[in-house]
Amino acid sequence: MRHVFDLVIRGGTVVTSGECFRADVAVRDGQIAAIGVNLPGGRRTIDASERLVLPGGVDSHAHIEQMSSGGFINSDTFLSATTAAAFGGTTSVISFAAQNTGQSLARVVEDYHRVAKAGAVIDYAFHMILGDPTEAVLTDELPGLIKAGHSSLKIFMTYDRVRVDDERILEILMKARENSAFVMAHAENHGMITWLTNRLLKRGYEHGRYHALAHARLAEREAIYRFLALAELVDQPVMVYHVSTVEGSAVIREARGRGQKVFAETCPQYLFLTRQDLDRPGNEATKFMFSPPARETADADALWQALSLGDLQIISSDHSPYAFDGTGKLRNAAVPNFKQVVSGVPGIEARLPLMFDAMVSSGRFSVQDFVRWTASEPARIYGLAPKKGSIAIGGDADIAIWDPGKTVTFSDSAVHDLSGFTPFSGRTVRGWPETIIRRGEVIVADGKLHAAAGSGRFLARAAGEAAIPTGKLPLEMDSARNFGAELY
Amino acid sequence: MRHVFDLVIRGGTVVTSGECFRADVAVRDGQIAAIGVNLPGGRRTIDASERLVLPGGVDSHAHIEQMSSGGFINSDTFLSATTAAAFGGTTSVISFAAQNTGQSLARVVEDYHRVAKAGAVIDYAFHMILGDPTEAVLTDELPGLIKAGHSSLKIFMTYDRVRVDDERILEILMKARENSAFVMAHAENHGMITWLTNRLLKRGYEHGRYHALAHARLAEREAIYRFLALAELVDQPVMVYHVSTVEGSAVIREARGRGQKVFAETCPQYLFLTRQDLDRPGNEATKFMFSPPARETADADALWQALSLGDLQIISSDHSPYAFDGTGKLRNAAVPNFKQVVSGVPGIEARLPLMFDAMVSSGRFSVQDFVRWTASEPARIYGLAPKKGSIAIGGDADIAIWDPGKTVTFSDSAVHDLSGFTPFSGRTVRGWPETIIRRGEVIVADGKLHAAAGSGRFLARAAGEAAIPTGKLPLEMDSARNFGAELY
Amino acid sequence: MRHVFDLVIRGGTVVTSGECFRADVAVRDGQIAAIGVNLPGGRRTIDASERLVLPGGVDSHAHIEQMSSGGFINSDTFLSATTAAAFGGTTSVISFAAQNTGQSLARVVEDYHRVAKAGAVIDYAFHMILGDPTEAVLTDELPGLIKAGHSSLKIFMTYDRVRVDDERILEILMKARENSAFVMAHAENHGMITWLTNRLLKRGYEHGRYHALAHARLAEREAIYRFLALAELVDQPVMVYHVSTVEGSAVIREARGRGQKVFAETCPQYLFLTRQDLDRPGNEATKFMFSPPARETADADALWQALSLGDLQIISSDHSPYAFDGTGKLRNAAVPNFKQVVSGVPGIEARLPLMFDAMVSSGRFSVQDFVRWTASEPARIYGLAPKKGSIAIGGDADIAIWDPGKTVTFSDSAVHDLSGFTPFSGRTVRGWPETIIRRGEVIVADGKLHAAAGSGRFLARAAGEAAIPTGKLPLEMDSARNFGAELY
Amino acid sequence: MRHVFDLVIRGGTVVTSGECFRADVAVRDGQIAAIGVNLPGGRRTIDASERLVLPGGVDSHAHIEQMSSGGFINSDTFLSATTAAAFGGTTSVISFAAQNTGQSLARVVEDYHRVAKAGAVIDYAFHMILGDPTEAVLTDELPGLIKAGHSSLKIFMTYDRVRVDDERILEILMKARENSAFVMAHAENHGMITWLTNRLLKRGYEHGRYHALAHARLAEREAIYRFLALAELVDQPVMVYHVSTVEGSAVIREARGRGQKVFAETCPQYLFLTRQDLDRPGNEATKFMFSPPARETADADALWQALSLGDLQIISSDHSPYAFDGTGKLRNAAVPNFKQVVSGVPGIEARLPLMFDAMVSSGRFSVQDFVRWTASEPARIYGLAPKKGSIAIGGDADIAIWDPGKTVTFSDSAVHDLSGFTPFSGRTVRGWPETIIRRGEVIVADGKLHAAAGSGRFLARAAGEAAIPTGKLPLEMDSARNFGAELY
Repeated sequence: MRHVFDLVIRGGTVVTSGECFRADVAVRDGQIAAIGVNLPGGRRTIDASERLVLPGGVDSHAHIEQMSSGGFINSDTFLSATTAAAFGGTTSVISFAAQNTGQSLARVVEDYHRVAKAGAVIDYAFHMILGDPTEAVLTDELPGLIKAGHSSLKIFMTYDRVRVDDERILEILMKARENSAFVMAHAENHGMITWLTNRLLKRGYEHGRYHALAHARLAEREAIYRFLALAELVDQPVMVYHVSTVEGSAVIREARGRGQKVFAETCPQYLFLTRQDLDRPGNEATKFMFSPPARETADADALWQALSLGDLQIISSDHSPYAFDGTGKLRNAAVPNFKQVVSGVPGIEARLPLMFDAMVSSGRFSVQDFVRWTASEPARIYGLAPKKGSIAIGGDADIAIWDPGKTVTFSDSAVHDLSGFTPFSGRTVRGWPETIIRRGEVIVADGKLHAAAGSGRFLARAAGEAAIPTGKLPLEMDSARNFGAELY
Repeated sequence: MRHVFDLVIRGGTVVTSGECFRADVAVRDGQIAAIGVNLPGGRRTIDASERLVLPGGVDSHAHIEQMSSGGFINSDTFLSATTAAAFGGTTSVISFAAQNTGQSLARVVEDYHRVAKAGAVIDYAFHMILGDPTEAVLTDELPGLIKAGHSSLKIFMTYDRVRVDDERILEILMKARENSAFVMAHAENHGMITWLTNRLLKRGYEHGRYHALAHARLAEREAIYRFLALAELVDQPVMVYHVSTVEGSAVIREARGRGQKVFAETCPQYLFLTRQDLDRPGNEATKFMFSPPARETADADALWQALSLGDLQIISSDHSPYAFDGTGKLRNAAVPNFKQVVSGVPGIEARLPLMFDAMVSSGRFSVQDFVRWTASEPARIYGLAPKKGSIAIGGDADIAIWDPGKTVTFSDSAVHDLSGFTPFSGRTVRGWPETIIRRGEVIVADGKLHAAAGSGRFLARAAGEAAIPTGKLPLEMDSARNFGAELY
Repeated sequence: MRHVFDLVIRGGTVVTSGECFRADVAVRDGQIAAIGVNLPGGRRTIDASERLVLPGGVDSHAHIEQMSSGGFINSDTFLSATTAAAFGGTTSVISFAAQNTGQSLARVVEDYHRVAKAGAVIDYAFHMILGDPTEAVLTDELPGLIKAGHSSLKIFMTYDRVRVDDERILEILMKARENSAFVMAHAENHGMITWLTNRLLKRGYEHGRYHALAHARLAEREAIYRFLALAELVDQPVMVYHVSTVEGSAVIREARGRGQKVFAETCPQYLFLTRQDLDRPGNEATKFMFSPPARETADADALWQALSLGDLQIISSDHSPYAFDGTGKLRNAAVPNFKQVVSGVPGIEARLPLMFDAMVSSGRFSVQDFVRWTASEPARIYGLAPKKGSIAIGGDADIAIWDPGKTVTFSDSAVHDLSGFTPFSGRTVRGWPETIIRRGEVIVADGKLHAAAGSGRFLARAAGEAAIPTGKLPLEMDSARNFGAELY
Repeated sequence: MRHVFDLVIRGGTVVTSGECFRADVAVRDGQIAAIGVNLPGGRRTIDASERLVLPGGVDSHAHIEQMSSGGFINSDTFLSATTAAAFGGTTSVISFAAQNTGQSLARVVEDYHRVAKAGAVIDYAFHMILGDPTEAVLTDELPGLIKAGHSSLKIFMTYDRVRVDDERILEILMKARENSAFVMAHAENHGMITWLTNRLLKRGYEHGRYHALAHARLAEREAIYRFLALAELVDQPVMVYHVSTVEGSAVIREARGRGQKVFAETCPQYLFLTRQDLDRPGNEATKFMFSPPARETADADALWQALSLGDLQIISSDHSPYAFDGTGKLRNAAVPNFKQVVSGVPGIEARLPLMFDAMVSSGRFSVQDFVRWTASEPARIYGLAPKKGSIAIGGDADIAIWDPGKTVTFSDSAVHDLSGFTPFSGRTVRGWPETIIRRGEVIVADGKLHAAAGSGRFLARAAGEAAIPTGKLPLEMDSARNFGAELY
């Protein structure tokens, strides 16, 4: 008998960014071919009754095999990180091609392509980190790389070697405008952090808990405000990465209310951890150290509200895996002071279960909201839609089948990435992605990986609607035309 | 041959609140049974190539066969109004059961049910207008009526005979809280309007253009603020009807930003008409008279922005059909002063084509946005979802097939409602709903109605998620518990 | 030897609203004649070394001998209240001429003049309370009374018999505009208070502590917002009485920031008492009951900040003396429920020492700030300047000589008004007004009164700069002119 | 006969920051000795009937004999500039001791002292500009210089050679905190200005009008926001110099509303000139070029409102005199592009007449307001009070006698400073300072100078109340204490 479909997932509760209904989902040639009641059979059938059938997650912020000038600087390979992602219900990831001082951006992108191609088990794309945006890089390399499908640029406003100053940010924003790319920023005030860090260390305050003082909340509020002012000057849409404070989220809301095209994300660590997690003794604190740091419970509350109001649109992981040893967290010293600690925590695997539990199992949000924040919106904003991020006819058949009743307790021993720990260890969640399907193929089932290293594919992206300027210039920029000065 | 489906719409571009893709849509037993590529045949097939296949519109604010104590007071019957709705692409309407002084609310609801059952050609529900919310009505009648599927209550803050004062509004909000109903308000300050009206008329300013002065924009801003303050006191979600000003929309944004559960709508007349439309000579101005009035272009701009930010969620028609003669607009005088004019304009038919043209054909918004504001969101907020408002498996097969290229110019002679005119006469739009399907049956095709009077069905609604209190009480209300005073 | 001056106060630290310096102050004919170093002698000399020489206080909000239709309803006579004022360092008071339902305003004013003339020992003026602002009162009586020196009108937005609705408020504001008078309001939402009161009492919550729940903070925020909206409609400056909340003060700040001419006051009871003061057992709570009620510590903090920012300008007493017995507080019942309690507390005597201690002795504010908030600003805003409120050449020689080091503990037995208690009993302050001079005459010295009943004089006031409209009308009111509709 | 007083000014209308009354003012030993009616005679008498007797103006922002590393770089000497000041009614000035790269601050201060001592005809003080705040300068030199009476520090956030970055600003603010000094900033975003300037020049837009585009309004808004954030981090009061925009003033208002201790000034050029003044042909535009530039009329309106609300407190001149020739404005090129033009305009003489005309003669503000913004407030905020800035017993007898009716038209030929032009040329004002008295000596009368070069005195200043921290630290800085990390 000839089968109409390659795969039919039967009887599940299907969820898209807008709807939730009981239906079968049928796959043909790696794409969603039909959704309906009592669909005809497929070569393979999965029973999804009592299960939720969700789009595979899209993690739009992850550092995988990140390299410094001197080599790899984090613990994961594309194989380990994307395996962890798949086990966590994520089927697409946007990682970084991170340029360091003196490097050719094109060469950097090529390098990351090579390692991803070799290892990835889910589909992937790259944001380009502009760590040394020389005129040559911006003019000779950038346009071609954007055209080749790397339509998003990240800048750092802090960190010694890679941060870019205001003038450079403007130049990058303008290049993004001219070449249809999207710009994201790690927004913290460098001067504040440096000054506070030096002052703390000079006085002997070295423990990890002082990391949260050094990265003062004002450093975030100020930098977000400045980044948005720079973007407003040239009318270019932007994304604020990992918002952590009440005030940061308020600055974004105000800008959006004035009509500026601003997007923003936060991460589970800002919703579930607090500054108090850094109070652990000795090196244990380093497992909870990332930048910006987790804040107070009131901040988490404000971030939840900002998400529900649409001021923030995305939950990403900011996956930054560093082993709790001399190769990772403790690379710079056996008992590092807070400045010496390598900052960042893993999260690519825990992201979706943590959010599902807090949103859906708790009853606080709808499962559509969960899908929107963790899959549809990142896909839409970064130009992966309509292929990724939803269960829709013609889209890639990236599907996660969730058991809403399954209860799991996070533990260091269970993680699939190579950092070897999770800051959420000991936390119990309800709801778990059981079976993961990538372009119609089951890649995780029964707790095992069924995908070969390198079976993930590169996703070339043109910038989506999110990156289109509003066309409204600031007053005197607009009047520049009357002056005969066409600036843009 | 036995057909799997009753109807298959082939090859169209299918749009939901979240997605847009090429697919067939199949109907069985009046419901969407499947969406997919190359679905098997149905008893009937409609070719939708080069067409958009959208959910039928949901108009959540319309006055049909509205009665005063003395009889019907507007021009439409359920047959005429719902016919006009169907021609305009709308397949569900929520009209009003309007209580006047001294009337039993139950009896009023019964009366409206009778006329709707006799005439409607699309499905319908009722909001109950509480024009005389006596203790008896609130206690003895309201709970049963809400349980019977009338889960939304409207109040007027102005208009002599039906307006309710602040104390009464609180009592209504509390009854809504206790019985799970949703409250909407026409929010304008009665004292301001009365004072200005009397002052204008006393000085001889009688023409329709003074209507816009009498309904000062401050009257809207103040009343919205007060309505939200009252709702905040008892923590009950509310809807602000027909927002018309920059300031009104700012008050709503601020309340939402503080975490209050507030929803709001506007109507095409506030987006496409302005105060200057009242400057027509003599009685012509009455065709552009409604309350609150249209404002300035800057207000329309602000409303568009508020919609795009999610501060407003719904576009309704506020359909209020009065013939341009002694039975309608000019009932109170042959040449009425602005206070004597019967206020309100028809719009149930023009709503969707106007919005489609301005949103989709113009390229300013996505077609998903159009669907969301005019169908999915009203259905969700008022408890019609998941049956209505989307194209989703298991939902009612209410579908409008649009020709995105068809150009139509509005004219008085073409309207299907009985007001006999449209304030949008002369305006040309691109994009038109060609074929309208209600629960799987074609009710409009080739410019003709194919539905019998009374074939529309009543939609009993339980209040949706939108009507659930946040659980956060104001400070001292919260502390009431500590005092031993449990107020709620 | 002929003396140049009648009185010379030697060697004190003289304080005006702007400066503070060491000097002699000389008086001739009841006025300040000279300020300087080593002035020639006077007929009488007071040694003020180690003393502060301040302008006598101006209390712009006090209820003295207030009458209802049925007779006097509070405990003080003009003799007792102004004696208490003088002992507290206050030399001018603006009390109320309170119209009740059905009364002629002119007759009411006449009555109050009679009692004041008989008893006052300090100078006085009257605000007129419009409790029944009929057309006849507003048109026939009001203009003449304003011209006669009663240039300020008070309205109540709550309280059953005297409150005025929005339409009436507009009419009063317009009459004030036309006749150059200033309008003040007790701003609380009547519907909220009534609804909450009934709900509380019905559930048996009768104790005084529920008073603070019934007068919800939202009732203040809403009413201030509405009062300012009404005033904005007709462009008339206004004063908000006794602000008690963070939010109320924020509403005022926002209106001022938009350019609206708004003034506001608060009273010591909102700075030094809190809602917890109502937690006393039984009738004791009634001694701390006033409207709006005292709130939280955070509110007091916000009021201090609003004062320091100039959003609030005046500290008045809202002196409302009711004896703690069946003639006053307990008039309506021996153990009254919170609604039956007569609301209001005495404060005319404690106002200045409380503020001096908290501002000057504490070091938190300058003594010029103290003078400004308690004397210069009320005099300026209400049209008593330049005669009153400062130590300036040509002004009335109303002077309070303070001992900044004297420590006093408030107690019920020491009060000079007839309420017989003070809500500040037991509180110790540093800084005390020792010698009080009214128009050059010593009226308090050595703890004794040296003034005859009736020696105080009426102060006829034309409205000051504060009452002049800005000339900026709301948008459509302004455009009324283009329409040919001159509304004002 | 022995005279009691050295000088008596008879019969004028005396004005202080708070009051305005008819009186004689008597001077002894250079100080105000008495104010009163019919004071006894003095050795010298000035008839001031029909005149206003005001405190001499205090100009807190002027660049006199400013030196670069290579020598004097502006046109005035202390003799010429202070002569111009005196003719304009100003009797105290705070000029700058401007450190350039590599210089010892102490040596710089010494240099400026020398030239001032030689030339000044009015009293003077110095702000120190920290153009190269090395650790050595901040630690070894700064404390002593502050103690010696230079209690205010200025920083530039733009300008290539002297600007300081965020980390350095924090260090300066902290040193100010530790040594009780006050910090002021020229707040414009350097990156924006540089980027825009380069972009404009590269495209050939060289005329002066492009100066206003290069100094985008966003550059001001952003830099003010950042400066206030830095100050908030260490809880140090600050002054924002020459605010020019609606948005800049809004940022300040918001910070003040949150309780931050922020002061701000603007200058006549921002109130009376606009961007359109730069539209003059060729080099003429350079006479209207200063930084930040003049903006729109709406900005001037907003600045007036900010002044009246107390958000801005001071009107200074920012006197920057450059001759309209190759020694000044055109030093860098005969026909300079806008970047080559030397930025700055003279204003020390015009400041008071311009403000008097616009405030007092126009009737828009009281003469006390004029005195407060131009004399009392700068004196108070910068620690010159109580000696300077008012007419008060014991203060220096610095007095300007104004003829309120005298009409004068500004012209280049009439200016007393050495720039040789005024941007206000052709403007007519009513009200003029006729006779100027400095410490009791008449220094200007009958249009002539009666003071010797060097007769002005240095005013050593301790920081006033304005520079005292609030004591409220940001949240985590505060919690630093709990962590055992005492940062301050």
